[in-house]
Amino acid sequence: MNVVYTNIRRAAVEVVQGLGRYGVATVHEAQGRTGLLGPTLRPIYAGAHIAGCAVTVSLPPADNWMIHVAVEQCQAGDVLVVAPTSSSDAGYFGELLARSLAAREVRALIIDAGVRDVRALTDMRFPVWSKAVHAQGTVKETLGSVNVPVVCAGGLVSPGDIVIADDDGVCIVPRLEAQAVLKASEAREAKEAATRERLQNGELGLDIYDMRAKLAKRGLVFRPQSLTE
Amino acid sequence: MNVVYTNIRRAAVEVVQGLGRYGVATVHEAQGRTGLLGPTLRPIYAGAHIAGCAVTVSLPPADNWMIHVAVEQCQAGDVLVVAPTSSSDAGYFGELLARSLAAREVRALIIDAGVRDVRALTDMRFPVWSKAVHAQGTVKETLGSVNVPVVCAGGLVSPGDIVIADDDGVCIVPRLEAQAVLKASEAREAKEAATRERLQNGELGLDIYDMRAKLAKRGLVFRPQSLTE
Amino acid sequence: MNVVYTNIRRAAVEVVQGLGRYGVATVHEAQGRTGLLGPTLRPIYAGAHIAGCAVTVSLPPADNWMIHVAVEQCQAGDVLVVAPTSSSDAGYFGELLARSLAAREVRALIIDAGVRDVRALTDMRFPVWSKAVHAQGTVKETLGSVNVPVVCAGGLVSPGDIVIADDDGVCIVPRLEAQAVLKASEAREAKEAATRERLQNGELGLDIYDMRAKLAKRGLVFRPQSLTE
Amino acid sequence: MNVVYTNIRRAAVEVVQGLGRYGVATVHEAQGRTGLLGPTLRPIYAGAHIAGCAVTVSLPPADNWMIHVAVEQCQAGDVLVVAPTSSSDAGYFGELLARSLAAREVRALIIDAGVRDVRALTDMRFPVWSKAVHAQGTVKETLGSVNVPVVCAGGLVSPGDIVIADDDGVCIVPRLEAQAVLKASEAREAKEAATRERLQNGELGLDIYDMRAKLAKRGLVFRPQSLTE
Amino acid sequence: MNVVYTNIRRAAVEVVQGLGRYGVATVHEAQGRTGLLGPTLRPIYAGAHIAGCAVTVSLPPADNWMIHVAVEQCQAGDVLVVAPTSSSDAGYFGELLARSLAAREVRALIIDAGVRDVRALTDMRFPVWSKAVHAQGTVKETLGSVNVPVVCAGGLVSPGDIVIADDDGVCIVPRLEAQAVLKASEAREAKEAATRERLQNGELGLDIYDMRAKLAKRGLVFRPQSLTE
Amino acid sequence: MNVVYTNIRRAAVEVVQGLGRYGVATVHEAQGRTGLLGPTLRPIYAGAHIAGCAVTVSLPPADNWMIHVAVEQCQAGDVLVVAPTSSSDAGYFGELLARSLAAREVRALIIDAGVRDVRALTDMRFPVWSKAVHAQGTVKETLGSVNVPVVCAGGLVSPGDIVIADDDGVCIVPRLEAQAVLKASEAREAKEAATRERLQNGELGLDIYDMRAKLAKRGLVFRPQSLTE
Repeated sequence: MNVVYTNIRRAAVEVVQGLGRYGVATVHEAQGRTGLLGPTLRPIYAGAHIAGCAVTVSLPPADNWMIHVAVEQCQAGDVLVVAPTSSSDAGYFGELLARSLAAREVRALIIDAGVRDVRALTDMRFPVWSKAVHAQGTVKETLGSVNVPVVCAGGLVSPGDIVIADDDGVCIVPRLEAQAVLKASEAREAKEAATRERLQNGELGLDIYDMRAKLAKRGLVFRPQSLTE
Repeated sequence: MNVVYTNIRRAAVEVVQGLGRYGVATVHEAQGRTGLLGPTLRPIYAGAHIAGCAVTVSLPPADNWMIHVAVEQCQAGDVLVVAPTSSSDAGYFGELLARSLAAREVRALIIDAGVRDVRALTDMRFPVWSKAVHAQGTVKETLGSVNVPVVCAGGLVSPGDIVIADDDGVCIVPRLEAQAVLKASEAREAKEAATRERLQNGELGLDIYDMRAKLAKRGLVFRPQSLTE
Repeated sequence: MNVVYTNIRRAAVEVVQGLGRYGVATVHEAQGRTGLLGPTLRPIYAGAHIAGCAVTVSLPPADNWMIHVAVEQCQAGDVLVVAPTSSSDAGYFGELLARSLAAREVRALIIDAGVRDVRALTDMRFPVWSKAVHAQGTVKETLGSVNVPVVCAGGLVSPGDIVIADDDGVCIVPRLEAQAVLKASEAREAKEAATRERLQNGELGLDIYDMRAKLAKRGLVFRPQSLTE
Repeated sequence: MNVVYTNIRRAAVEVVQGLGRYGVATVHEAQGRTGLLGPTLRPIYAGAHIAGCAVTVSLPPADNWMIHVAVEQCQAGDVLVVAPTSSSDAGYFGELLARSLAAREVRALIIDAGVRDVRALTDMRFPVWSKAVHAQGTVKETLGSVNVPVVCAGGLVSPGDIVIADDDGVCIVPRLEAQAVLKASEAREAKEAATRERLQNGELGLDIYDMRAKLAKRGLVFRPQSLTE
Repeated sequence: MNVVYTNIRRAAVEVVQGLGRYGVATVHEAQGRTGLLGPTLRPIYAGAHIAGCAVTVSLPPADNWMIHVAVEQCQAGDVLVVAPTSSSDAGYFGELLARSLAAREVRALIIDAGVRDVRALTDMRFPVWSKAVHAQGTVKETLGSVNVPVVCAGGLVSPGDIVIADDDGVCIVPRLEAQAVLKASEAREAKEAATRERLQNGELGLDIYDMRAKLAKRGLVFRPQSLTE
Repeated sequence: MNVVYTNIRRAAVEVVQGLGRYGVATVHEAQGRTGLLGPTLRPIYAGAHIAGCAVTVSLPPADNWMIHVAVEQCQAGDVLVVAPTSSSDAGYFGELLARSLAAREVRALIIDAGVRDVRALTDMRFPVWSKAVHAQGTVKETLGSVNVPVVCAGGLVSPGDIVIADDDGVCIVPRLEAQAVLKASEAREAKEAATRERLQNGELGLDIYDMRAKLAKRGLVFRPQSLTE
């Protein structure tokens, strides 16, 4: 059955804002190395960094009808996450849909397929993470669903989850874990700041992380290169 | 037999100029969603947007001899389209060939293979759409043909066809259909301008495109998310 | 057995500097079209151009422990070259390791796997050529080796070899051949400068390279396109 | 946190048996075109057709420790479903693990990674659907989880779900929907049997499915090929 | 515009039969190394070898409606060639459509997309060359065209062309060149038979093809391996 | 410079025979998880298992001239290993070259590119591991080298090394390590035989390999699935 869920629960605004201060790598580590979507998703331009609540779309390959349906479900601060039911690199999304989302203050599109009008999207500064850039048009013939759990680029996304995206890719934080992940991100960042300074000053990770004994125990051998050649 | 066709018919200059005002997505839609080359072809730098007449080259894998032959067939406003007879990512083209094409006012290279010297090409602002960047050199040993129909990145290109390329990829307009496609592109752009304004003002595509009745008829269900979790 | 070779022989500084004046394509041609790593390695930002001596790391997939070990073996002017023993796109390297390498004046990272923190690496201007950008964390559990010969993106790299990298990719010059390749690069560049000028002035490669007789002998036919359509 | 869930609910034996009478294509259609894992999963030998209850494993790339843990959770009629947390083609599974699973009457392995010893697995008739065949060994160093929901080849698999696999690939039926999908599969098969006979007798799908009016309404034109060439 | 061309010209039966005696490699060479479709097309079972006249289908991604339309245009000895307008690995074709084609004595399907029911197709001995095996269902919503030229796996196929397919892949012979290619195939086969015998008897290709002088002229050096190691 | 090394040192016959008793997975493990070529190399038919001494060929993409040169350097028990200098899927090798190699009692071909005539090769039982099956012909124009070290499918192969290949892929054993690897393979096989029997009898790897304490120490939690759903 094809359903549009209309009043999804979203993560609290201050948690989303909080997570938005951290990059994808930090958040991914902070939640136990989970939640990353695959590296096939790339930003259409460098430098964007966003956080928002997922509105999800499951739709047929090469058919973007449900994106039009989903726009109505989006509100300020959301991120649209689109996943076709089988592999497709067609161009589901372009400038006009971006104008519509921008008018609703949607923050970004994540799509496991193609997009087009990337020059206009870049000029508008509407960020997109996609697996392809392709002008191939799609049809509007077959239903899908909005705000159901979807698998996007190999990761599971539920409506209302928090989406973090930057030049490293896209990370999903489950809504009910967001508060805890925020705390863990803050802690990780603080710890890394101290390490960063020591590394910049020339200390070695071998010493900072106290690795030498463990390496020796595992049997690592240090040896001068032989002189003959 | 290996042939160089020497006096190909080209599309009229004003039609090429006209089509050059529109992006790849617009032209592709205007000609009935045909003519796109595959999304494996990517620009070596962002922001280029060109239109010109195709001079085509069919050549053996990892052998660029016929590109040298083809240069002589190019004139101002042409676009060189190169397709190896089997898959290759070698670097068939670099700065020197670009200098030669630029001297003849050729507008771009489209190649279903690799190119090199991309820093120099970028500095020259000589645009290239290719499937790879690779410094691997090629030989000059085996003949091919110039100005025969070629399949490039999954699309058919005939000599004299119009090539439109931008950040979305590459679209081919058959020479004899170019005038009609230009008209259709103008019409599409005009229509989109009106839609764009309505979308920017917050109207929904659901309403602008009058989709609600059709969605209901197909059986789409709207439902509040259940409260339990 | 897992070994770290500690005092590798490096190419002479002046030879490395000399080769660093030439691009990857030139050096690759100058050494007889050998030494390129595959085109799957791409720079994380455009415009970097480096030369340095290879410190090599062979490590297990999704385990970056040996990178920490290798840092200690690096000195100013080195380039770290990392190759997992089976295919992986995890993110082995990020900002903190880059800080550590930068503190030692290491010039770049070449890695046949993924990296993360690419925004920070770009801001630091620490150049990386990688096959993926991916935030996926790695573990530190299993030994590998440092300064052994490795196969990286399909090319062989020995410790102390010279690494040249630019927007075209990565080229390896064996240490003992570096002096000869430098001379050949100088000669090639000089020759190309003369050719460049002739091509810019509109002379054809067909004439400059004296190809017409050879083409005719091979049987290439020039023919006007037929008038019927 | 790394957890092994130990007493998962499984679908009823008779439902699993029932679904096992139908192929992957039939079951996939019967449940509304959902549930397929991606076509990158291929059987290591042709002709196997299995149904069973999923025991799921989430593990680090190139580390098969958790498969050893999962064996203990398997019982007769189960299917082991293994998904690394990032892309890997290493060989996580071979003859010895297959012996262990076969001793527990496990029916198959589904793995979004590589396997080895495929000759021995074929001789044993232990069926495997994998994305690669690769002898590359893995380590046993890092924990994962057993019987948590996993994304495998782009599809979601929960412990206790029913796995159907044949030469067409792998389909997942959620445990709570299995009874309904079984009924729908029976209905579909019955309907197809009637259609099959009519098609074998030379009737056209155009007539059986009553497509002609709809095609005409959409504007399909039938036209003799022109005589000129 | 969407058109079905209804009375296409086909190659003469005896030419098709004649070409069917030769493998794909022979025919490809005999027509000057042209006409191959890409190696992404693989047979669903080993050992099939067919020749027939192409009935072509251009259709939207993930929509198989036009295959149903095309069946009516097929006659005994034809081969159905199907190409989506953008990349797709969905399963457009299965047992029921194969029954329908078999009832009309169609010899094979060539499809640049996915198929399903491969066990049943194999049991029926209905040969298929496809780029994927995937059970994913398609819709029947959008028109395409039948018997127009299509690009399939990177090669151009016109209706009425001869299709040769075996374990090496698929080769297309243009209808108007078929008689000449048949003669060239016969000649090539005869010549290879003589060479085959000499090679089996231990003569070297170096001598049979008289390569030694040319190799020496190009500068090939023969040298004993050095004794030190 | 292009060189053919003519009297390469080969591993001792009894060592080659000894290693030929073990599969690729066993030998790869026995030599410390090194030596595998990549999983892109697949056998053209199932069931072949060979061992022999490498005669290596480095050649240009889409040019098989050097294979003809290399045949003369082969003797009974050798395995031809072919690697193009840049990526290619053309068909470098077919039945005639196989006849020539078979006449010299060469055991197999390993090629990081395409082959053709796979039906005839299968009927002859001439085993090939390749990355593609493709009928695309190659030229004979440009020199390469024979019996130099080559990188093939990501692995290093030196002339005279031992090649082991079976349905799992291809493993290279350096000539000077072959005796030691043979011993280690024997030891591994003996140990696995004992383990195999225990696993077949239903003992768990968890107990045989004594993993429970280590798992507990790392923090693995066992927990019944919760009853609510």
